[in-house]
Amino acid sequence: MAQLSLRVDLGEAGRLGPGKIALLEAVREKGSISAAGRVFGMSYRRAWMLIEAVNTIFAEPLVTTQTGGRHGGGATLTALGETVVAHFRAIEAAAESAAAGHLDALQTALKPSAAENVQPPV
Amino acid sequence: MAQLSLRVDLGEAGRLGPGKIALLEAVREKGSISAAGRVFGMSYRRAWMLIEAVNTIFAEPLVTTQTGGRHGGGATLTALGETVVAHFRAIEAAAESAAAGHLDALQTALKPSAAENVQPPV
Repeated sequence: MAQLSLRVDLGEAGRLGPGKIALLEAVREKGSISAAGRVFGMSYRRAWMLIEAVNTIFAEPLVTTQTGGRHGGGATLTALGETVVAHFRAIEAAAESAAAGHLDALQTALKPSAAENVQPPV
Repeated sequence: MAQLSLRVDLGEAGRLGPGKIALLEAVREKGSISAAGRVFGMSYRRAWMLIEAVNTIFAEPLVTTQTGGRHGGGATLTALGETVVAHFRAIEAAAESAAAGHLDALQTALKPSAAENVQPPV
């Protein structure tokens, strides 16, 4: 099934895509940046840098950290973090729904061998 | 202004994004693969490979070439090519329109310095 993959271009502030949003959701679920990074096989440093990148472009941080050592403290998605995640997921849902007819049409135009799912032999 | 950038994931057939679509539109406008590639600073080989990639996943080719030598013959966007381009552009328009309110909300949540356009000094 044809599906949309989308990013939001925020001009000089950069881009917001499904990777950063999923990381923010993992912070909410795991309560720590290192644990959230591990969900995606990402180093603490890489996860921290991605979160720092989004923290600095919005009016307030999307993630706050508590003291307790570099890896020991927890991390929380802020109210603005929740709002940004919700808007991004709403953009995805609205876009997918609005484009559904055209996505079906593209799927139908594919070569049958490319469009069908591979079935295991019986 | 926050804007969407989207790709269509076609499963095993790959992905269709704004780069390939713009190249197809350039083929329509320029009537040749090499001239279309030059619009994007792309080698003939690179442009040809991208077009070959989309040609092979759809039920019929999106671009056909005429004889006249490797670089000498013309290239035409087929009816299916026109249809695929039109669906992609319609997906973009429908998605942007459906998501407009959420895109505005993300833009508003940006840090003012990140959101404003840099103005040249008077």
